[in-house]
Amino acid sequence: MANERIYNFSAGPSMLPLSVLETAAAEMTNYHGSGMSVTEMSHRSKVFQDIFDTTKADLKRILNVPDTHEVLFMQGGATFQFAAAPLNLIGKTGKADYIVTGNFANNAYKEAKKYGEISLAASSADRNHCYIPKQEELKLNADASYVYYCANNTVFGTEWKYVPETNGVPLVCDMSSNILSKPVDVSKYGIIFAGVQKNMAPAGMAVVIIDKALAGHELPYTPLIMNYQTMIEKDSMYNTPPCYTIYMLGLVLKWLDTMGGLTGMEKVKAERAKLLYDYLEESKLFKPHADKEARSDMNVTFRTGDEDLDAKFVKEATAQGFVNLKGHRSVGGMRASIYNAMPVEGVQKLVAFMKNFEAANA
Amino acid sequence: MANERIYNFSAGPSMLPLSVLETAAAEMTNYHGSGMSVTEMSHRSKVFQDIFDTTKADLKRILNVPDTHEVLFMQGGATFQFAAAPLNLIGKTGKADYIVTGNFANNAYKEAKKYGEISLAASSADRNHCYIPKQEELKLNADASYVYYCANNTVFGTEWKYVPETNGVPLVCDMSSNILSKPVDVSKYGIIFAGVQKNMAPAGMAVVIIDKALAGHELPYTPLIMNYQTMIEKDSMYNTPPCYTIYMLGLVLKWLDTMGGLTGMEKVKAERAKLLYDYLEESKLFKPHADKEARSDMNVTFRTGDEDLDAKFVKEATAQGFVNLKGHRSVGGMRASIYNAMPVEGVQKLVAFMKNFEAANA
Repeated sequence: MANERIYNFSAGPSMLPLSVLETAAAEMTNYHGSGMSVTEMSHRSKVFQDIFDTTKADLKRILNVPDTHEVLFMQGGATFQFAAAPLNLIGKTGKADYIVTGNFANNAYKEAKKYGEISLAASSADRNHCYIPKQEELKLNADASYVYYCANNTVFGTEWKYVPETNGVPLVCDMSSNILSKPVDVSKYGIIFAGVQKNMAPAGMAVVIIDKALAGHELPYTPLIMNYQTMIEKDSMYNTPPCYTIYMLGLVLKWLDTMGGLTGMEKVKAERAKLLYDYLEESKLFKPHADKEARSDMNVTFRTGDEDLDAKFVKEATAQGFVNLKGHRSVGGMRASIYNAMPVEGVQKLVAFMKNFEAANA
Repeated sequence: MANERIYNFSAGPSMLPLSVLETAAAEMTNYHGSGMSVTEMSHRSKVFQDIFDTTKADLKRILNVPDTHEVLFMQGGATFQFAAAPLNLIGKTGKADYIVTGNFANNAYKEAKKYGEISLAASSADRNHCYIPKQEELKLNADASYVYYCANNTVFGTEWKYVPETNGVPLVCDMSSNILSKPVDVSKYGIIFAGVQKNMAPAGMAVVIIDKALAGHELPYTPLIMNYQTMIEKDSMYNTPPCYTIYMLGLVLKWLDTMGGLTGMEKVKAERAKLLYDYLEESKLFKPHADKEARSDMNVTFRTGDEDLDAKFVKEATAQGFVNLKGHRSVGGMRASIYNAMPVEGVQKLVAFMKNFEAANA
């Protein structure tokens, strides 16, 4: 059955390591002799608490999270955090700065406007988000409660190569589509959040890494389930957490250890991206969307310039077992999402297929 | 492995049908020849859309949901809905009536106070929530935007045996712990919501059944992810839904069909509850917490009156493979949660164990 698995270039939810899925299958009816599935466990039971504690400890170790910060598991994905971040943080000054480099950053920006005075610190909309603004282009306000940006723009295929300098204003970052792909200096961030469905686990949860000093100042109408302080105090278990998703994250983290942790993932990431971008540079048929210095190692966007030919490419690729390559409607063309669980072999085979397609459609 | 499974009386998350878990295990690495796991599927893919559509259609059919109502799948569980319900509905008059018959109803009541003028229509706190108020005891306001109650009180083991008459004011009901256990007249409700982790699926989602006419009047600071109107318009996919949980719900619904649907579940439910309550009536050792006419068919609360003996019971039961029988701290004693997936055999064996325990500790 495993042999029939295909290469899934979906932008998210996306591929998980086969060994993780095999472990999940083997443990589905009876986890470690507990007589029950993880899907059935009381979140207050010792057996689940052990899974929870191990997963959280592994994540803190792998991401080198300092003691100033807490790791939370929350439901609702990144969209939930688009509201939770301002609701919890904007009360300080009533103001925040947003950098809009793609669809999700823009959604976060629009959501934040409900809760305070939001400044657009920079936007890459003028060239359909094919670049990342430079530090000197960021219009940052000293009295902002926080500065918000999205580290990797899934739709457009761009990625920040630097951490914005904010002169002490807390930095809030959506890392949904590149978390765990490389080492990160967590201490530079007030909040890092990430929907898990790209590099971490099945959809249905966000990981939030928060400087504990920032919590406890939420607006009065903040829903309790969005209250970071409550979630910190209750160790993410004020209410029933998404237990099975936490378990799956735990399995992924164990796999990640076998791959050499974040430095290991960073190496594989560079290898995958180089294969695709090197070919795109030399191709006469396919053109990358993103500016060279802004290209994402997670989402590679490209097109032929001919919509019919794009459609033909996607169709033929699908028939060959390379699926979900159709680009987002905001960009058109194609997008290959090459997250942690995509084997290098999958990209090698995709590039070989692209070369054949180019030769056949020259 | 399946043979070693134990009887799990957890209040939630709780047992799932073994056949569902076996199917989930078998399909984990490759769903129906798609070459991928449901955990990896793009929520925009046809293969997942089919799972989504089938699950939703099955739920609408099984619960006999009228066309006036929409079924939503939302993350965050019931706690999320404690905020979402007032945020979406209270704008009409700024007022709502809450009936507090347990812990979760009380949490909902406290949360709603952030958003409007909340009246306590009735409370059973005077006798530690061992009863359900009668219709004539409900102090309902004609200008309430809605009336809120919790159909089954997991912690205290009580269950409403009637639907409150509200004279046209929309009824909002938390059915987390008894949904799908019996037929329900959905047309009587403005909103039914239920965390899935008791009778439906692994934790990480709530099902919301909403009269579409009630949506679209949310308070201006309602987080987008809590906006019922947006979720209706986007068919629960404004953002990435908890895909695997939806798939598991689909499997549970197929199992439910093989059990005779809701009338079948109602019969089994009555059988399970009768076994336990009949014995509790005759027992000289164990005393039920709830008044006879208010007893829940889902959560059976009882105690010996001696805390040490209660602890001894829970310990010996656990050793015999009857787990998670410790009562909630608000009630003490024991609680046997006997949801849809608990086989009658499990309750028969528990009662036999209780009889032996009583004989040995007379």
